[in-house]
Amino acid sequence: MSEQPSKVYVNGSLFDIKVPFRRVVLDELDENSNNVKLDLYDTTGEDSPGNSGITPLRQRWISNRDDTHAIDSDKTNTGGSVPPRVANKGKRPTQYGYAKSGIITPEMEFVAIREGVDVGIILEELSKGRAIIPLNINHPEAEPMIIGSRFLVKVNANIGNSSVSANIGDEVTKLHTAIQWGADTVMDLSTGADIALTRDAILRNSPVPIGTVPIYETLARVGGNPVNLSFEAFKETMIAQAMGGVDYMTIHAGLRLSHIPLTIPRVTGIVSRGGSIMATWALAHHEENFLYSNFAEICEIASTFDVTISLGDGLRPGSIADANDQAQFAELATLGELVKICRAHDVQVMVEGPGHVPINRIAENVQKEVELCDEAPFYTLGPLTTDIAPGYDHITSAIGAALIASHGTAMLCYVTPKEHLGLPNADDVKEGMIAYKIAAHAGDLSKGHLGAAQRDLALSRARFDFRWEDQFNLSLDPQKARAFHDEELPAPAAKKA
Amino acid sequence: MSEQPSKVYVNGSLFDIKVPFRRVVLDELDENSNNVKLDLYDTTGEDSPGNSGITPLRQRWISNRDDTHAIDSDKTNTGGSVPPRVANKGKRPTQYGYAKSGIITPEMEFVAIREGVDVGIILEELSKGRAIIPLNINHPEAEPMIIGSRFLVKVNANIGNSSVSANIGDEVTKLHTAIQWGADTVMDLSTGADIALTRDAILRNSPVPIGTVPIYETLARVGGNPVNLSFEAFKETMIAQAMGGVDYMTIHAGLRLSHIPLTIPRVTGIVSRGGSIMATWALAHHEENFLYSNFAEICEIASTFDVTISLGDGLRPGSIADANDQAQFAELATLGELVKICRAHDVQVMVEGPGHVPINRIAENVQKEVELCDEAPFYTLGPLTTDIAPGYDHITSAIGAALIASHGTAMLCYVTPKEHLGLPNADDVKEGMIAYKIAAHAGDLSKGHLGAAQRDLALSRARFDFRWEDQFNLSLDPQKARAFHDEELPAPAAKKA
Repeated sequence: MSEQPSKVYVNGSLFDIKVPFRRVVLDELDENSNNVKLDLYDTTGEDSPGNSGITPLRQRWISNRDDTHAIDSDKTNTGGSVPPRVANKGKRPTQYGYAKSGIITPEMEFVAIREGVDVGIILEELSKGRAIIPLNINHPEAEPMIIGSRFLVKVNANIGNSSVSANIGDEVTKLHTAIQWGADTVMDLSTGADIALTRDAILRNSPVPIGTVPIYETLARVGGNPVNLSFEAFKETMIAQAMGGVDYMTIHAGLRLSHIPLTIPRVTGIVSRGGSIMATWALAHHEENFLYSNFAEICEIASTFDVTISLGDGLRPGSIADANDQAQFAELATLGELVKICRAHDVQVMVEGPGHVPINRIAENVQKEVELCDEAPFYTLGPLTTDIAPGYDHITSAIGAALIASHGTAMLCYVTPKEHLGLPNADDVKEGMIAYKIAAHAGDLSKGHLGAAQRDLALSRARFDFRWEDQFNLSLDPQKARAFHDEELPAPAAKKA
Repeated sequence: MSEQPSKVYVNGSLFDIKVPFRRVVLDELDENSNNVKLDLYDTTGEDSPGNSGITPLRQRWISNRDDTHAIDSDKTNTGGSVPPRVANKGKRPTQYGYAKSGIITPEMEFVAIREGVDVGIILEELSKGRAIIPLNINHPEAEPMIIGSRFLVKVNANIGNSSVSANIGDEVTKLHTAIQWGADTVMDLSTGADIALTRDAILRNSPVPIGTVPIYETLARVGGNPVNLSFEAFKETMIAQAMGGVDYMTIHAGLRLSHIPLTIPRVTGIVSRGGSIMATWALAHHEENFLYSNFAEICEIASTFDVTISLGDGLRPGSIADANDQAQFAELATLGELVKICRAHDVQVMVEGPGHVPINRIAENVQKEVELCDEAPFYTLGPLTTDIAPGYDHITSAIGAALIASHGTAMLCYVTPKEHLGLPNADDVKEGMIAYKIAAHAGDLSKGHLGAAQRDLALSRARFDFRWEDQFNLSLDPQKARAFHDEELPAPAAKKA
C-alpha cells in the first residue's frame, strides 16, 4: 500500500478546477472487496512548496472575469512581487456581488466540492450574506474556502512577529505548521520589523486566505503612538495591503467614542489591541473613531479588491467577570449597522466575537450576533471559559470554542498555550491548531454534519477491530497517536492484532 | 514574602478538626493596606509525606462513634498494615445513615468548611442522597470530601499498573502527582502483579478517597477467565478490599442479561472492561449478572465499612455513533433500581456515566440520570466529544466534561492523553489532571459558584495590573505559566511591570 495518506483531486463539472482531498485507504474491505477509502478536507496546498511562492491557481479565473486589470507595480507600494490588480471602473469583483447577481464562479464550485454540497446552497448562503469566500483578487495562490454556519466550522491560526523577535523565515515556517495541522485561514499579526516583507512572504506561500489587522501596520508607520494615527495613514496601509493580496482585514470600526465610558466598571478594561489603539485615539482627540466615520470609504476600497471585512470586537471582554457586558453588546449593535454598510457596497463581511465567557453565557453571544448582525458569519476567539489556567488557554478556550461552534459560530480563532504569556512558536501553533480542530469538529458533530461523523465512525470501527494503522491515519495527529501507542507496544504485530 | 503558596488551616467550631487550604498572598492591598489573600481548596494532604504512610487523622473520629470495632488482623487477608475495623452487629456506620438520623459528624463539618457552606446544607444533601462523602472506616488517612451537584465539581484520577508494567513505587508517585495537581479522588485500576500490595501502599499514603473496580482483582484471583468468576470469589475480594480501606467501589451490577442483545447494532459493542467481563460471564452461563442478583448482599457488606458504591455503566457508549442508545439507557434505568436498594441499606451511592457523546446529546445524559436515579450524584468519564483525536483525548473529553459539569455532574473521571493508546505515566497524569481541573472549574463558574469566581477575578485583576507573580501563583500550573512567560521576557523586572 502506498504511503498514507495521499492527496487526490476531484474535478469540477462546471469549471476546469481540481479540488484537493487527503485520501485515507483503510485495511477494511467493502462489499466488493475493495479497500474502504475516506477523503478528508485538506488545507495543505501543493506538495513540497518550499518558500519561493506557490502556483497562482486562481489567476486565470480572475482575469477571465474581465472586471479587473493589472496595474503598473512600480507605482505601488505593496512590498509584493506580483503586479497587483484592481477592479475596472464601476465594478465590484466580489464573490458576494457575483452571488447576488446569480453568477456561479469557479470559487463557488470549488467550495461546493470541498464541502460536499450542491453549488446552489453555496450561491444561496453567499447571496444572503450568511457565508463568505474570503479571497482577494491579488492572492491568486489561495484555494477557495467558505465560512458560514451551514458549512464545516473553520479554524484561523494567528501568527506574526513582534518587536522582540522578528524573522521572516520563522513566520513562513509557522504558516506551514498551521496549514499542515488544518488551519483554514491564517492571520499575520506582525508588528515588528519588515511587516510588509513578512506579509508578502506569507501571501506568496499561502494556499489559505490571509487576514491582517491593518491598524497595526498603520501604527508602526506613524511611529507607534496611537494619537498620531489618521484615516489617511490607515487608508494608505489598507490599499497597500489590499494590493499585496490580504484576503480579509479586521477593522475595529464598531468601537464608538460613546462606548468607551461603558468600560469603566470593567475588571480588565479594553483588552483588544485594536480596540485599545482606537479608544486611545478617540479619547485623545475627543472625536468619533475614524474607522467608523469613514466606513463607507473603507468599503469602497474593500470592494475594489474583494477584501472581506472582519468587523473587530474592540470591546470584547478580557475576563470572565466582564463577559456579556453593556460595552460588549453596545459595540455588537454597531457592528450590525456596519454589516449593512458592507452589504450595500457588495463587500463580504464577518463579525468577530469574544474572548472570555463562562459556559452558561456562551449561547447568548451567538443569539445576539445572529439577531443584531443579520446572520453575518460569526468569527470568535475561543472563548476562554475560565481565567485560571495560563499556559493551558488552548484548553480553557477549546471548551468554549466547541460550545460556541455548536451554537453556530462559523470560524474559530485559535488560542495557543502561550496566550497571555508570549508569542507562539511553531510548537505552540501546532498545539493550538490541534485543540481547535477538535473544537471545530466537535461543533460539526453537534450540528449533525454527516461528513464529519463519517470520520469518527471510520476511526471507531478501526478501534473496535484493533486496526491500529487505520486509527493512526484517521486521527488528527497520526505521529503522536503512533508514538504513544509504541511506548508500550512497539512491535508492528501489535498494531494489527 | 514567604514562599508561595503556603498551607493554612481552618479550625472546626463543632469538632476538633483543622481543614487545610492553600493560601495565596497577593501583591494587591486591601482598604487597610494588608495584602489581599485567597485561600484555595487543597487536596495535597500533609506536607512531605514520603511513602511510608500518613497520619490517620480520622482514627479518633471513627472510634469515638462506638459503632465499629477493630478485629484481629491476622485473620484477615487485606494485604494491609493496619488492623481493620468492622461495624458492630446491627450497626451501619455510614455518613448517609448518620445524616438520615440528623447526626452531624466531624466529616460533615470538615467538608462544610472546605466548601464554604453551612453544615446544614451538607446534612440536607447527604440525607436526601444527593451528595456523598466516600470514606471507608478503614481509610482513616483520608481527608473528607463531598461529591454532589450543589458543591464544587470534583475530579477523579485513574492510576494503576497492568500486566505489561508493574511497580508499586511508580503507582505511589502517580498518586502524589494526581493529588499535587488537585485530584479529589484516585481510582487504583491495577490489574498486574501485587494488586493487593499496590493498593495498600496507595491507601496508606493517600489523603484522598480511593476507588477500585473489585471485579478486576477477582478476575485475577480466578486466573483471568471471566467464565470462572463467581459471586463467592467477588465477595471475598470485596471484603478484603473493604477491610483494606477502599472508599468506593465500582460495581457493574446494572448490566443485565437482557440488555446484552441491545448492543448488537452498536459500532463499538461493550467497551467498559467491567461491563465486558460481566457480559462474558452472563452469556457463558446464560444467567443473570451475579452482581445484580446478589446486590442486596453487596450492600450489606458496603454498609459494614461505609464503602460507597459507584454503580458502573458497563454499557456506556464507546464511540460517538453509540451515544445515548437503547442499551445505555436501559442499563441506566436498572442503575436507578439499584440506587434504591443502596439507600434502603444506608449505603452511599453514585452513578457512573459516559463515555463518548457529541455535544448536542450531553444534556440528555444528566436529565435522564437525575430522573431515573433520583438525583444520586453523577460521576462521568469525560465524555469525549469526538473520536478523531487519539493522543489528545484529555482535550476531546475536557470539552464534554466541562459541559456535563455545567449541567450538574458532581464528579468527573479524568481522561489522559494516553486514552485508547496505553497506560498513563506520571506526565500523562498531570496533563489529564490539569485539563480536568479546567473542566471542573469551568463547570463551577457556569453554575454560578461564587467561591470559584473569586479565583478568576483575582487572576484577572492581577493580569490587568501586570502583577505577573500573582498571576503565576493563582494559576493551575504556576511553573508552566512562569516558564512560558520567561521564554520571552526572563528579567524579573518584567514580571512586576
